[in-house]
Amino acid sequence: MPVGTQGTVKTLSPQELKDAGVNILLGNTYHLYLRPGDERILRFGGLHRFMGWDGPILTDSGGFQVFSLNALRKIDDQGIVFRSHLDGSSHRFTPQKTIGIQRNLGSDIMMVLDECTPYPCDRDYAERSNERTLRCAQASAEYWQSSDPPDGYDQALFGIVQGSVYQDIREKSAKSLTELDFPGYAIGGLAVGEPAGERNRITDFCTDILPSDKPRYLMGVGTPVDILESVARGVDMFDCVIPTRNARNGTVYTADGKLIIKAGRYQDDQEPIDAGCDCYACRNFSRGYIRHLFNANEILGLRLASLHNVSFYMHLLNEARSRIEAGDFSSWSKDLANRWEE
Amino acid sequence: MPVGTQGTVKTLSPQELKDAGVNILLGNTYHLYLRPGDERILRFGGLHRFMGWDGPILTDSGGFQVFSLNALRKIDDQGIVFRSHLDGSSHRFTPQKTIGIQRNLGSDIMMVLDECTPYPCDRDYAERSNERTLRCAQASAEYWQSSDPPDGYDQALFGIVQGSVYQDIREKSAKSLTELDFPGYAIGGLAVGEPAGERNRITDFCTDILPSDKPRYLMGVGTPVDILESVARGVDMFDCVIPTRNARNGTVYTADGKLIIKAGRYQDDQEPIDAGCDCYACRNFSRGYIRHLFNANEILGLRLASLHNVSFYMHLLNEARSRIEAGDFSSWSKDLANRWEE
Repeated sequence: MPVGTQGTVKTLSPQELKDAGVNILLGNTYHLYLRPGDERILRFGGLHRFMGWDGPILTDSGGFQVFSLNALRKIDDQGIVFRSHLDGSSHRFTPQKTIGIQRNLGSDIMMVLDECTPYPCDRDYAERSNERTLRCAQASAEYWQSSDPPDGYDQALFGIVQGSVYQDIREKSAKSLTELDFPGYAIGGLAVGEPAGERNRITDFCTDILPSDKPRYLMGVGTPVDILESVARGVDMFDCVIPTRNARNGTVYTADGKLIIKAGRYQDDQEPIDAGCDCYACRNFSRGYIRHLFNANEILGLRLASLHNVSFYMHLLNEARSRIEAGDFSSWSKDLANRWEE
Repeated sequence: MPVGTQGTVKTLSPQELKDAGVNILLGNTYHLYLRPGDERILRFGGLHRFMGWDGPILTDSGGFQVFSLNALRKIDDQGIVFRSHLDGSSHRFTPQKTIGIQRNLGSDIMMVLDECTPYPCDRDYAERSNERTLRCAQASAEYWQSSDPPDGYDQALFGIVQGSVYQDIREKSAKSLTELDFPGYAIGGLAVGEPAGERNRITDFCTDILPSDKPRYLMGVGTPVDILESVARGVDMFDCVIPTRNARNGTVYTADGKLIIKAGRYQDDQEPIDAGCDCYACRNFSRGYIRHLFNANEILGLRLASLHNVSFYMHLLNEARSRIEAGDFSSWSKDLANRWEE
């Protein structure tokens, strides 16, 4: 899922996303709640109509931004109190409130409010935080069951496994959530600075417990290698700003690894970013041209790099699905990872 | 002609320009010469290939930027010496040199080097400057005749009428250039701060002299009203950054006049920018959404506003052509001007 923080995947149009093979987007509840406001978006007929995207949308709970933007003021069983990063105004997210906001947004998949523990996180805090997160999940599930979508379209709700790097806490989290019988499950609290080995260990552990007939979503991951390693461990869904953010910084992905398109070495390069890619950027423009656009601060450079990176990720995941069906995912993904490490 | 200063019409892709009905672009010789360099563009197969635009391109001579960017150091019969606004390096444009650069760029229409007099400009300076400009035009025409396009495609050369607001100098300029038998003629030295009445008076005067069977191009004009007033006076071609620059500042054009899409009054407006427009922005997005994108500093807002404004200009000029053929251009354009002034 490309990330559409503020009701747009940065630099790209809905048509371009569709052409790149994107079939589901992520929207950020925290940002949309603050600006332009979920009630305003409701008046526009929901986020799909507001942003002109007719495919599925998943919205997060808003909790992660409260932590990552240092907006947090207080956390307790009644939810989280935070200040807007825009104007300093004070707000409270409760389990019910974040579901209510996501109902207004009209997302197809809503996420429960949770506390994403930092890394490192001491065991005692992880345990107490997880208890809060579980009570929050329970309250969220109840509110979800007792409330209706404003436009009549079903809205699913996913639970989020927490527990930092502690297997017993993760186990308690995953099992408790499974009992609540959510339509899908996310693994949270990873991709927050821990080593890849830790992430893989916890991912492995969680997917072993979570039901295999429900979607499993690893939040905030990641690089192409991270994603393939997680797919190998049973993860079905991902969201990450890496393809679009890196693109805007001038880093683009190719079958042979990433390259810094801004670099002077590409100024005379007449090849496309990735000769094997069929995206609009690769079909029509050279590395040298895109390098020039970055060098001259032209927005079209950001657009072409973003479009290519999103297309690259979509191709990668489509190929992963084919390889899983063909039974050679493991060797294929190892080959790729080796090539990219060179 | 939308302006593609640095090898891209700001924020827009070639495909979008085509979809908006654009059939010729302007490229800026000064900018492209400095970055990425005309010789580099030649190695990429010319500006068309470099930027992925397969329609016609007109390039200016580079002289106007030397004046407007305050890069000028010295002007004489050997040309102009200037400093790069990028790195301060020193350069010289001669009549031959700017043709050579435009040959490397491979534009379909090249412009002669001229001196664009400021407004106001005293009579004595306008006269001396015009003599220089005419000698420059003569030298340019000779060099054009004796040099070849690098890729074998014909490259036309247009002369530029100068003379500030002085009719006798304008007359000398227009008649002398006509004797050189250029494939087309531009009217320069207007849209530099003079009142609209002065511009219209000089435009009228010049088009009466310039041959009616050759394209007449009014450089740097303008607003929709300016353009219609000039079409009425016999002008065939225009270039201006107004549609794209205004778009990036949040000003968009509609059949009922312009509006500041950033304004708070549009935050709940579910109508498109212009209900009568069939561009991608108007077919898919509301004023409220585009206002949100501007408010949140999202690039898609700049894109949609730019796309709409370019489409608006193209529709306006297409309609003007139809009205001329139908014989009711005058009443139609007066109605529009009245509506836009309200």
